[in-house]
Amino acid sequence: VAKLLGTRYPIVQAPMAGGFTTPELVAAVSNAGALGSIGGAMLPPETLREAIRATRALTDRPFGVNLFAPLEPERPSEEAVDAIQGLLDRFRADLGLVRPAEVPSPPPPGTVEAQLAVVAEERVPVFSFTLGVPPLGPVREAGAVVLGTATTVGEAVELEGLGVDAVVLQGSEAGGHRGTFRVPFDQGSIGGMALVPQVVDQVDVPVVLAGGIMDGRGIAAALALGAEGVQLGTAFLTCSESGTPAPYRQALAEAGADSTAVTALLSGRPARAIRTELLAAVESSGLEPLPFPLQGLAMADIRAAAAQQGYPELLFLLAGQGVGLARRVPAGELVEALAAETEQALRRLAG
Amino acid sequence: VAKLLGTRYPIVQAPMAGGFTTPELVAAVSNAGALGSIGGAMLPPETLREAIRATRALTDRPFGVNLFAPLEPERPSEEAVDAIQGLLDRFRADLGLVRPAEVPSPPPPGTVEAQLAVVAEERVPVFSFTLGVPPLGPVREAGAVVLGTATTVGEAVELEGLGVDAVVLQGSEAGGHRGTFRVPFDQGSIGGMALVPQVVDQVDVPVVLAGGIMDGRGIAAALALGAEGVQLGTAFLTCSESGTPAPYRQALAEAGADSTAVTALLSGRPARAIRTELLAAVESSGLEPLPFPLQGLAMADIRAAAAQQGYPELLFLLAGQGVGLARRVPAGELVEALAAETEQALRRLAG
Repeated sequence: VAKLLGTRYPIVQAPMAGGFTTPELVAAVSNAGALGSIGGAMLPPETLREAIRATRALTDRPFGVNLFAPLEPERPSEEAVDAIQGLLDRFRADLGLVRPAEVPSPPPPGTVEAQLAVVAEERVPVFSFTLGVPPLGPVREAGAVVLGTATTVGEAVELEGLGVDAVVLQGSEAGGHRGTFRVPFDQGSIGGMALVPQVVDQVDVPVVLAGGIMDGRGIAAALALGAEGVQLGTAFLTCSESGTPAPYRQALAEAGADSTAVTALLSGRPARAIRTELLAAVESSGLEPLPFPLQGLAMADIRAAAAQQGYPELLFLLAGQGVGLARRVPAGELVEALAAETEQALRRLAG
Repeated sequence: VAKLLGTRYPIVQAPMAGGFTTPELVAAVSNAGALGSIGGAMLPPETLREAIRATRALTDRPFGVNLFAPLEPERPSEEAVDAIQGLLDRFRADLGLVRPAEVPSPPPPGTVEAQLAVVAEERVPVFSFTLGVPPLGPVREAGAVVLGTATTVGEAVELEGLGVDAVVLQGSEAGGHRGTFRVPFDQGSIGGMALVPQVVDQVDVPVVLAGGIMDGRGIAAALALGAEGVQLGTAFLTCSESGTPAPYRQALAEAGADSTAVTALLSGRPARAIRTELLAAVESSGLEPLPFPLQGLAMADIRAAAAQQGYPELLFLLAGQGVGLARRVPAGELVEALAAETEQALRRLAG
């Protein structure tokens, strides 16, 4: 996988959407010999182009961009929107906010196609995708290495059939949105220990495991299972170059393996995140979430104010089950440590 | 762990309750150099004694017995029982059954204490427990090696404090009942990749990983994560010596990584099992399950008839997420294969 990606180590920094993957983070990871990745899904095409160029100004090593499959959220009823907003108003009061006249809109139709054109035009070396399958023609023609995200054996086989260069397997341990696209979400919630061997027996393309990997022990385990590489998200959230807000960092530092839950209530689509007061309130309201990504956009003002004012309990704290092992170090130092620990774990196993 | 258990390999055959762990299975596993284990929880004390003696007649190697923490199910209302039985009557009609005048009773109070006395009197070499913590005095005084089951870091630390000799970590991939006893079940559903490193950093006793392990790749991965041993359940369900009924075997052979779900609807307590028509029917009824183990006992006649008549869709098909890798071999052959594959995986990693 390292050869395929053009990196020194078979380690990918997960392309987390939501402002975490600053050019500084991505470049530091790539400069250290792993694959830095821009979580580009929520960026308007020209903002994505700027992020790519800003990254390229900081590294001449390969890096990646990740996009979602096109989203076509159904329009929710006014009643549904009002019910959620009514619930959220309580938290706004605590933050000194009033309900905004308009909530941010989801990306307009055609956004993914425009983002893909940017990735192709900018000749981004590695393109990865999740939440389904976007049209791959432009990035392929531009020569990008293409990685697709799967959560089941069937999804991995499907992606191989579509010609991806490698499959990123998202184990149930992973933080962030579930990439499941062919079966109900709970059926696509499979732990890495079980998922990797069953997939590598069925596909010929290399497999990269994501989910719960935080150090060299996890990397060595992924290799033992048959993966050829690993993707780490939560481990990079606490790096100094990451765009993670201070209260989010505080929550990560206090969380443990049993602190997270998979919930659709904070974005409209199942995602693993640290349990918070905000989640508990939406849960106990019994309200159905608005379709992804509208539920998250409905509370965007709350998240922004909570990040600024320092309230982790009102943030959307995406994190994986390995969160208890997060460390506060520069990204380059983390990559070097991961590589050294992996060597150490493999030596320990050998002897 | 092998030294602690007195076995050649650090491999434990999971003590699955429900008629799977015949003396032939347990003895074959122990004779091959792993730890065979009797799932004794649902056996009346004297039946357990017979099972122990029958096993001992077939092996002079160490083996284990597993029991549950004492259960004190609340008595459900007659209405709740009638509602469930009304739902089940449809399936009885298909099987040519009528609703039994009385459903089987749960073990009477004092059962666990009596079972523990049997384990102590029979000098069973290894005692393991799950679903909480039973009184450990008698088995400890009898010199048994004691293994407790944990699903979170906190539970593992608690068991270490109680003086267990090793902790069996049940990852979310595992088939069967969730052993979670200190937090809500969903918080105790942690994948092995994330769970093992976080636990071994906090406890000094050896850790045995259970969940999703089906071959040498999984064993090597568990060792890489920091576990000293592994426990496999589903892998032994398809062994020729196992008490698994024919239609259950057929369902296991057809299942894959995404075939299972964690549900409380078939026993009253969350357990990972293959999704079936029976589960779907209970789910869509919206009925709350009776308290564990009453929900399972309420459908015991259906399970028995379905096993005999060959209907897997009406069975309680406990299985882990590794089920797609199950093989039909004698248990001794499986143990030898697991040991050889582990060596092979470790050699591959080293080179």
